[in-house]
Amino acid sequence: MLITSLPNIRYLTGFSGSSALLFVSARDVHLITDFRYQTQATDEAADVASVRIESTSLWTGLWALLASAVGLKSLGFESSHLVHRDFQRLLEQGERWNWRPTSELVEGLRAQKDAEEVSRIREAGAIAMAALGVTLEAVRVGMTELQLCGVLERCLRDAGSDAHPFPPIVASGPRSALPHARASTRPIAPGDFLLLDFGASTAGYCSDVTRTVVVSHADGRQRETYNAVRDANQVARLGVHAGMRGREGDALARAVLDARGFGEQFGHGLGHGIGLQVHEAPRLSRVAEEVLPVGSVVTIEPGVYVPEWGGVRIEDDIHLGADGPELLTYFTRELLVLA
Amino acid sequence: MLITSLPNIRYLTGFSGSSALLFVSARDVHLITDFRYQTQATDEAADVASVRIESTSLWTGLWALLASAVGLKSLGFESSHLVHRDFQRLLEQGERWNWRPTSELVEGLRAQKDAEEVSRIREAGAIAMAALGVTLEAVRVGMTELQLCGVLERCLRDAGSDAHPFPPIVASGPRSALPHARASTRPIAPGDFLLLDFGASTAGYCSDVTRTVVVSHADGRQRETYNAVRDANQVARLGVHAGMRGREGDALARAVLDARGFGEQFGHGLGHGIGLQVHEAPRLSRVAEEVLPVGSVVTIEPGVYVPEWGGVRIEDDIHLGADGPELLTYFTRELLVLA
Repeated sequence: MLITSLPNIRYLTGFSGSSALLFVSARDVHLITDFRYQTQATDEAADVASVRIESTSLWTGLWALLASAVGLKSLGFESSHLVHRDFQRLLEQGERWNWRPTSELVEGLRAQKDAEEVSRIREAGAIAMAALGVTLEAVRVGMTELQLCGVLERCLRDAGSDAHPFPPIVASGPRSALPHARASTRPIAPGDFLLLDFGASTAGYCSDVTRTVVVSHADGRQRETYNAVRDANQVARLGVHAGMRGREGDALARAVLDARGFGEQFGHGLGHGIGLQVHEAPRLSRVAEEVLPVGSVVTIEPGVYVPEWGGVRIEDDIHLGADGPELLTYFTRELLVLA
Repeated sequence: MLITSLPNIRYLTGFSGSSALLFVSARDVHLITDFRYQTQATDEAADVASVRIESTSLWTGLWALLASAVGLKSLGFESSHLVHRDFQRLLEQGERWNWRPTSELVEGLRAQKDAEEVSRIREAGAIAMAALGVTLEAVRVGMTELQLCGVLERCLRDAGSDAHPFPPIVASGPRSALPHARASTRPIAPGDFLLLDFGASTAGYCSDVTRTVVVSHADGRQRETYNAVRDANQVARLGVHAGMRGREGDALARAVLDARGFGEQFGHGLGHGIGLQVHEAPRLSRVAEEVLPVGSVVTIEPGVYVPEWGGVRIEDDIHLGADGPELLTYFTRELLVLA
């Protein structure tokens, strides 16, 4: 089988570089990468794969390897991780072989985390929580979202995060109603919701957490909205478990928000798997029929968004273990009013 | 034409979200995205495209749009930006239309920057230089690479960078020999090379710069290596211009390093275009036959890497304008020995 997804290659071999092809047969495993990763590929992957360095195109190396593989007739490839241009290479330079599309094979393995993987996500969660505590102490009226984002990123590095799994969302006031806002030059003002959605990473494994606070003072509408989201988070967090369907997990939170009249403002799914990537299998959404597998780690992130006014999201990470769910992110979910 | 590359969609419409399809016909332009981007898509793209929000799959919206387009027979798609799974959708749900692969059409437009784009990259360069100055003052023996990376990221945010175009490389001692090292927990030690490769972003446009310093003291071999790279940077920086082939630009630096006996240790190309992405057209490498177009902005980044010992890279950004090259990144290229 030909593996072209970099996170899948990392999962199978440990190689964390940005350019690689992996060829796996019943007999052996070959990692093809370029000059930049000569030292790194050997350090990370040489115990499980033969490392081959190509100076021009990785595909040249693949054709050479395949030509020398005896008795090879059919190969799988990753339908979701091979662009049309490279698919054409398989049909042209690789026409001697029979190419079969596969879907989510390695992703299925990745969804069921082993103890070491869960331990890394737990550590990434602890790093994120530590950074959040220090960051919230630094919040001042008049500071821009970008400045606070810089504080958060530095705190994450100081706490030991080896990567930012995604650009932190630091959204204040009406911008908190944008579920995927990035940080902007907007100054933080009294009465703002302030939403921080970010993650940490350790040895490649991610955490993903969100907390929403208010600045200086909160009004009744803010408290009512916040409490609805907090309760939806709690009901889902306590009720989700391996073996239920993704849509059943989603429904736990949606029922709370529907009952409070906020159902229309919860426009995304409840959560998603995390691991080597910040979005991976399984999904928790209205349409997710798949069963949440034992060993998966998922986010629980209900939100309510009111355009032009503001939004609240509270997100935790949870391991759906054989012995029951284990919460991986601890930080107060009561409404913090920051001076 | 169907556009699936997010940077290409941003270039054509201004939309900066992480999920979209763009359908462009002679008559009109439709941007399809999901609920999360309802407000943002309207703000960013409504002046050039009709915005359509889909709650489940973006493809559902595409088929509905295409079905209502009168007289549509053939559509182009982006061969390098459509995975096999989605290509199968075109052949199945989209079988009524004739789908034609295209290659680098929008990328070709993007390579020739207009004055506003160059101005954004110039500003991103200035932000990166400002952050570098403050960061180098904070370097202390015993600080880890990750801690220094956090300082750098915060300085970039304070200076106004709206995104990190890529995770900064902070590599010390022998790790500086890894051309694509990330920051690690290694403490910075006296006598280390310390290599910082990072960028800033403003309104989506990137800069990409590298400086290498030494910590506490430099020995003769370090100075000799450094000076060879500095001279290669200078010769290429002063000699590169629009109209030459990519390999001719690359050869300017390679000739200097070959003459000093370091040619074998310069294992990557001299540079690449920058813009909305940190790696885009054109390329400068041994095999780049394409001519560097007027208006392109490229990096000049010769390097020498000696495994187990260390490496040096010095990288600048340069606009290849009609009136001659304009350097966009100013920061000393003499060897700094930091206390």
